[in-house]
Amino acid sequence: MDQKAKALHGEALVIDCLEISRWSESVFKNMRLGGLTAVNCTCSILENFRGTVKNIAWWQRAFDRYSDLILPVHKVSDIQAAKESDRTGIILGFQNTSAIEDDLDLLSIFHGLGVRVMQLTYMEGNLVGQGCLERLDAGLTSFGLEVIEEMNRLGILIDLSHVGHRTTLEAIEASEKPIVFTHANPKSLCDHPRNKPDKALKAVAQKGGVVGATIFPPFLPAGNDSILSDYIDVIDHMTDMIGPDHIAVGTDFTENQPKQWFDWILTGKSRKGPALNLNHPLKNPKGIESSADFPNITHALLDRGYNEADVKKIMGENIMRVFSEVWKA
Amino acid sequence: MDQKAKALHGEALVIDCLEISRWSESVFKNMRLGGLTAVNCTCSILENFRGTVKNIAWWQRAFDRYSDLILPVHKVSDIQAAKESDRTGIILGFQNTSAIEDDLDLLSIFHGLGVRVMQLTYMEGNLVGQGCLERLDAGLTSFGLEVIEEMNRLGILIDLSHVGHRTTLEAIEASEKPIVFTHANPKSLCDHPRNKPDKALKAVAQKGGVVGATIFPPFLPAGNDSILSDYIDVIDHMTDMIGPDHIAVGTDFTENQPKQWFDWILTGKSRKGPALNLNHPLKNPKGIESSADFPNITHALLDRGYNEADVKKIMGENIMRVFSEVWKA
Repeated sequence: MDQKAKALHGEALVIDCLEISRWSESVFKNMRLGGLTAVNCTCSILENFRGTVKNIAWWQRAFDRYSDLILPVHKVSDIQAAKESDRTGIILGFQNTSAIEDDLDLLSIFHGLGVRVMQLTYMEGNLVGQGCLERLDAGLTSFGLEVIEEMNRLGILIDLSHVGHRTTLEAIEASEKPIVFTHANPKSLCDHPRNKPDKALKAVAQKGGVVGATIFPPFLPAGNDSILSDYIDVIDHMTDMIGPDHIAVGTDFTENQPKQWFDWILTGKSRKGPALNLNHPLKNPKGIESSADFPNITHALLDRGYNEADVKKIMGENIMRVFSEVWKA
Repeated sequence: MDQKAKALHGEALVIDCLEISRWSESVFKNMRLGGLTAVNCTCSILENFRGTVKNIAWWQRAFDRYSDLILPVHKVSDIQAAKESDRTGIILGFQNTSAIEDDLDLLSIFHGLGVRVMQLTYMEGNLVGQGCLERLDAGLTSFGLEVIEEMNRLGILIDLSHVGHRTTLEAIEASEKPIVFTHANPKSLCDHPRNKPDKALKAVAQKGGVVGATIFPPFLPAGNDSILSDYIDVIDHMTDMIGPDHIAVGTDFTENQPKQWFDWILTGKSRKGPALNLNHPLKNPKGIESSADFPNITHALLDRGYNEADVKKIMGENIMRVFSEVWKA
């Protein structure tokens, strides 16, 4: 990598809008190798309240045990502190609202435990709204409207990556704060139920939010044959559509997750097995295979002709702006 | 009351398709005074798994303590046994599927605990579908389809009284077994969100199910000023529409429930307070104020000109037929 890219990457805020790896010291070391300033780390997907609390307790122990590598992010200045101390700030996030069960009060409980990002639904419907693989393309429930109101009040960032189309649009409309797709690509580039129609991408930008482009192979046109430049094509396509102020990186890295784990998250409440065929084994795009490869993105963006200011926005400043606006509650 | 009505009531199977009283010895004594052979008694409304298990444990103690008045119904022959031993058979039922949370396996757990009737939703949406006061008139979720399949397999009767319009029609379509409205009146007589459009009433009959006419004052045209003959008018109206083989009695008695309890069930997950104004204090129709008044219904039906065979169907044989078809799994 050339010196310019290396220097830029070193000085930039580098934020991954979503990872869902099998958390371990080696994953955290890869984050350090990749120069990651902060990562939104999923700590609840299908779990209920109690299961999620257990996951958060794991993180509390990890923050002690790996304090040379990571630190918890509760506010924007914690991300600055991570940068200054050469560690990676961990933002705890949910990919579902199953953890709050039927109780609005649990939102402030989880906020108190440090959770700062919540996706409204995973693949299926829940008490809040409908997911992208749900048979219904229906909107927010009455409870969902109150969940959004309370997340806005507390300062929890709303993520709509996996959310169904109509629920996505209604949530963007209902939220008083910017919302994000932490990890989703344009449907117009790769027609997958998890990717987003242009209308939704534009609505996120209009609301002041960001879209994290993902390397997850099934959401890229070339699937398991993708390479880094295919990923940069996604960023190009979205930049053309909604401008460089609304693009971020949200890899969706699933480092060391076994096939059984994918089967679990894709089966959900059903007895019919995984709702999505992921074409296992997944093969991340050559050049961006783990957090350690993050400098390659900075390099590739510069090579593609992005100016330094835009590279810094995409690599972290855009999502940092959204955190600042939403978390201050 | 004349001797003919008294004799008929004494020999008939008398079944109340739904009560949700503050259960106590006095409530059970009223059931005996009214000559009730069996009652579908709600043991879960908004509760989750654990809360519902606790309610069922209360019933297990009650079956021991009040064994001179009541007995548990797990199969149709238990209702015959109740009749022969001059006791009231208690059918445990849910008015929601919140108790199974996100787990299809809990259906067989509750079936094992004796639960034989489950309403798919209460007033709000849940993981299965949408309730009648939900902002969405959307259909069944993917999970909801599997819940119906499993209820059919186990032999749990599906109740759709509080369920939203589209979810109701989809559930009738999806179920392989007859379904019921245990307690609902025609919207064409009293335009209340809890009452049912003619289309839905006809679909229940078409499926071989029954509709339990309710005395709950807000669902009667004269509200708190209703009298027994207004209730018989509801039965007349529905008999004209769907025939005497599909009508039953589902009072929705709420004996001794305090106002706070109504506020609780009508508030649900919301912070906005009760979703429905019930015009408290409720005043049951004169002539049918508690379970003790059940003989008055038999009397009034005969007075209205129903023949003895139809009176016996409406008072219990119709719902007994549905139990027979569904519970044999």
